[in-house]
Amino acid sequence: MFSGYSCRYFGYLVSKKKYIVSIDDDCVPAKDPKGVLVDAVSQHVTNLENPATPLFFNTLYDPYCEGADFVRGYPFSLRSGVPCAASCGLWLNLADLDAPTQALKTEQRNTSYVDAVMTVPLKAMLPISGINIAFNRELVGPALVPALRIAGEGKVRWETLEDVWCGMCLKHISDHLGYGVKTGLPYVWRNERGDAVESLRKKWEGMKLMEKSVPFFEALKLPESAVSVEDCVVELAKAVKEQLGSDDPAFTQAADAMVKWVQLWNSVNSSG
Amino acid sequence: MFSGYSCRYFGYLVSKKKYIVSIDDDCVPAKDPKGVLVDAVSQHVTNLENPATPLFFNTLYDPYCEGADFVRGYPFSLRSGVPCAASCGLWLNLADLDAPTQALKTEQRNTSYVDAVMTVPLKAMLPISGINIAFNRELVGPALVPALRIAGEGKVRWETLEDVWCGMCLKHISDHLGYGVKTGLPYVWRNERGDAVESLRKKWEGMKLMEKSVPFFEALKLPESAVSVEDCVVELAKAVKEQLGSDDPAFTQAADAMVKWVQLWNSVNSSG
Repeated sequence: MFSGYSCRYFGYLVSKKKYIVSIDDDCVPAKDPKGVLVDAVSQHVTNLENPATPLFFNTLYDPYCEGADFVRGYPFSLRSGVPCAASCGLWLNLADLDAPTQALKTEQRNTSYVDAVMTVPLKAMLPISGINIAFNRELVGPALVPALRIAGEGKVRWETLEDVWCGMCLKHISDHLGYGVKTGLPYVWRNERGDAVESLRKKWEGMKLMEKSVPFFEALKLPESAVSVEDCVVELAKAVKEQLGSDDPAFTQAADAMVKWVQLWNSVNSSG
Repeated sequence: MFSGYSCRYFGYLVSKKKYIVSIDDDCVPAKDPKGVLVDAVSQHVTNLENPATPLFFNTLYDPYCEGADFVRGYPFSLRSGVPCAASCGLWLNLADLDAPTQALKTEQRNTSYVDAVMTVPLKAMLPISGINIAFNRELVGPALVPALRIAGEGKVRWETLEDVWCGMCLKHISDHLGYGVKTGLPYVWRNERGDAVESLRKKWEGMKLMEKSVPFFEALKLPESAVSVEDCVVELAKAVKEQLGSDDPAFTQAADAMVKWVQLWNSVNSSG
């Protein structure tokens, strides 16, 4: 069942650490605009250790960053924030674009270093990537679930789809449980990859699945009875099967994989 | 009724322009990190002329900015975005903090130039300021309404409250009508003000009103029958009166002022 899943997810499964920082092996430390090497691990941990503020938007970015603060008018009752579940970093050089955009803009590189961290607001959806991410395993570990794959794909999977789907689950479950997700710093430098040109056909299949997922997540409301991450993943899987299962067999497979992942997670983490 | 209202709002009322750029007279052009003077008007117009993307969060910031794009995984069906109703700029030097924070951090200055524009997601609330703002008058003009004041205050009003309240109305109405609000660039440089120390008593009264407003806006759902900005302001005023009126006379006054503002807006703009 789980053959072919990214090693990344199995790392999350078996680790005993509170904070997981996961950066792909085609990335190296980036330099900030002053030429100083970025310590991505330390920035991720800072993001995770400080509260997130998903309930009200702070125009001055993450108020818990050094030198930053809450803007005037920010409600005092919301300033203590909520626990930060995940920190999504960005990368320079290789731009994080989809296949058609890459095909149109072959020369485009990401050179924009935006010196900011922010909390993604409650209910906002975003396409999280696993390239440069950190999370609090105690808060949301089992929500990092490898699940959605294009039906019938072999060993060479379209990891983007798996990542994006996992990210939508992670964000929704964080919202439901009252945690926040941050995005922005730290940057890493992502090197060119020889195998970067994946088949456009696969990409398109993945995109069709994504388009169907968006209204699903938009309308999704997990039951109040779901109070643990494990509950949430199982309830989410149930909703996927019921609402998307008839659209594409990939969704049924994803739902099954999510339930199995929680079982595996529980057995690994209870026997440890 | 309207005596003492900021000249700013009357400017919005009588203008015939599509885009209004409004920057307070204690601000001057800022310099970007390369030392180049920022053309705030041109950046605001760029923000307004290009679509906003409130329905899905783009981790690479405003995809319509030069050199930027949609991140991989961003749904194709949402890439055309929605019309941008307003562009909220930031400022350097004088930090945009509330009175107690200013009192604690007298030396704090905003020196952080974050080179980014982004759309504030659907349903996220934010404390918009009128210091450095631009908006599309044709789309949301009447939503820029001076309304909430501390009951019994004289000529020296607490403008922050009026601004923050107006911003909450503007954002909610933009969400309802399917428009977006952007924040970030352009920066201006805000000079120190001699009269910056306002009374803490007034600030606290304003903050109490704000705290009561947050759950109201969070739960607010304008009726589908409200299809014009004018409808929205009137419906919003009705809800304010019904749900907040018994809490504080300032809310009833605000509701009345909103309705009167729409009448004034209509009479000025139909007779022109």
